Amino acid sequence: MITVLTGGTGGAKFVDGLRQIVPPEELTIIVNTGDDMLWWGLYVSPDVDSVTYMMAGRLSQERGWGVKGDTFFALRAMGQLGQPIWFHAGDRDLATHILRSKLLSDGKTLSEVTAEIAAKLGIKARILPMSNSRVETRVLTPVGDLSFEEYFVQRWYQDPVESVRFAGASDAEPAPGVIEAIRTADIVLLAPSNPVSSIGPILAVPGIRAALRESRARIVAVSPIVGGAAVSGPAGALLAAQGFAVSIGGVADFYRDFLDVLVVDSRDFQAAEELRKAGLRVSCAPAIMRTVEDRVALAKAALAAAMQPPTMEAAAENL
Amino acid sequence: MITVLTGGTGGAKFVDGLRQIVPPEELTIIVNTGDDMLWWGLYVSPDVDSVTYMMAGRLSQERGWGVKGDTFFALRAMGQLGQPIWFHAGDRDLATHILRSKLLSDGKTLSEVTAEIAAKLGIKARILPMSNSRVETRVLTPVGDLSFEEYFVQRWYQDPVESVRFAGASDAEPAPGVIEAIRTADIVLLAPSNPVSSIGPILAVPGIRAALRESRARIVAVSPIVGGAAVSGPAGALLAAQGFAVSIGGVADFYRDFLDVLVVDSRDFQAAEELRKAGLRVSCAPAIMRTVEDRVALAKAALAAAMQPPTMEAAAENL
Repeated sequence: MITVLTGGTGGAKFVDGLRQIVPPEELTIIVNTGDDMLWWGLYVSPDVDSVTYMMAGRLSQERGWGVKGDTFFALRAMGQLGQPIWFHAGDRDLATHILRSKLLSDGKTLSEVTAEIAAKLGIKARILPMSNSRVETRVLTPVGDLSFEEYFVQRWYQDPVESVRFAGASDAEPAPGVIEAIRTADIVLLAPSNPVSSIGPILAVPGIRAALRESRARIVAVSPIVGGAAVSGPAGALLAAQGFAVSIGGVADFYRDFLDVLVVDSRDFQAAEELRKAGLRVSCAPAIMRTVEDRVALAKAALAAAMQPPTMEAAAENL
Repeated sequence: MITVLTGGTGGAKFVDGLRQIVPPEELTIIVNTGDDMLWWGLYVSPDVDSVTYMMAGRLSQERGWGVKGDTFFALRAMGQLGQPIWFHAGDRDLATHILRSKLLSDGKTLSEVTAEIAAKLGIKARILPMSNSRVETRVLTPVGDLSFEEYFVQRWYQDPVESVRFAGASDAEPAPGVIEAIRTADIVLLAPSNPVSSIGPILAVPGIRAALRESRARIVAVSPIVGGAAVSGPAGALLAAQGFAVSIGGVADFYRDFLDVLVVDSRDFQAAEELRKAGLRVSCAPAIMRTVEDRVALAKAALAAAMQPPTMEAAAENL
């Protein structure tokens, strides 16, 4: 059984690789909901949507978010009605937001709604939101305290980041199945998502970090930092704002208390050697996912890293 | 000042004629909300939308409802998600439903929301929902107690109608401005809408029928019944179900207590003569609106009927 923690576009690409090599009934995907927000009064869950569309083969490859081939007529009409249009909800995408909002207002939980939508789209793997409680990633910048989507999409992560917090996290509970999926997995993968804003909210839900520490699973993270910079998005700026180095070492530090193996890009072989000397198992693989083949290869590399026994050197170092 | 009571597609066409000959600041449109419903959890107000789109020059002429040139990608996506799709909300149309739902859940009234949307679309005439209270037109049929849209759109008015009622009407209040617009108008027009299901709900709101009876305005109704049958839709079936003749006489009876002049189609000149003998002022004009020119001509005929002094005969008869 394989459980993956994910969020963001890098995470969705990695999940695309995984779904092509792991039988769906063996795959559980725990998804960040820190980016969730009300948009035009509708409940939008950007990372859950991306993973759901990806698993259904419907994610737009060009954009990396939203539905393949989607149109934006409702969005334009909203603009004509004087409403904000910086979050690009497509017409097909809107159906998901409308249905989720309706089911939530009918009293269903986000878990139930996520499962219902996934089932309708023929998805057999389990997609679990990290929590049914509202946890909001807030990014403090000189222009104000922004939601993650305001920071990332509306303002295109141009603002210096003073700090990141997860509002509501301390009162949140993991969604049903999350703790069990971590505890009972053979392998737990951390997708090459932004550690701070995609994996961080998941880790901030009380009980999840402890479950990772206590899990019998081999825990493998794939670094979203390659050559000292984020592959995409604001992972570098957010790691720095949280006091972590923008390097594979910073990623390792972020996951230090539960990580078994870090998968890094091959070009980071020297930094990898440093980490190995410090006692961490590190596996090198091409980590930039330009094509679907890259995604599959990286997913395979992560699984291989989980399944390999420790090398003699690493075993010796770990003594 | 001209106030028009309207609903349905015939009403929207008539309003299209009116807007081309009446300055917008002199026009108040009181709209049926008995067809309003929650669709996918969104608050839809079909007649308010039709009038709003018509006044903005955006109503689809081909369909008679919805936005000109609209697409239906969200609808198809909803179908794929297993949701009902018999009410054809287009992508651009959805923007209106989403915004209205949001503003209502923010605590605004339907009047305020209607005015806000109309203003955004550049509409200068006043569009007033009949009431801010929920009044639901229910059609009792052998297959069950249906909402109007279920009866009309989902089941395409195929079911025998046992009765029609306006749930919630007795506790409803006219929306702000409605009574005043009736009392202070120079002319009140009843569009050639379905008397039972489009004008009936308006008349069922306590105070509105009394305001019509007491108004100093000349009150002119345009008959939606031509040659003993409805021009379109279920007006005939619903009039019969309510115990009225399916004729211009039935329409006259429906409005009897406040009607000054009935405008009927020219082919009903014989039936018109009967009504005149019974003491009603009746004006004949081509009442089938196939083209935009037809709409303008009918609107002009209705205004002319309102402004003509009673004929000597009619005056004599009325003595």
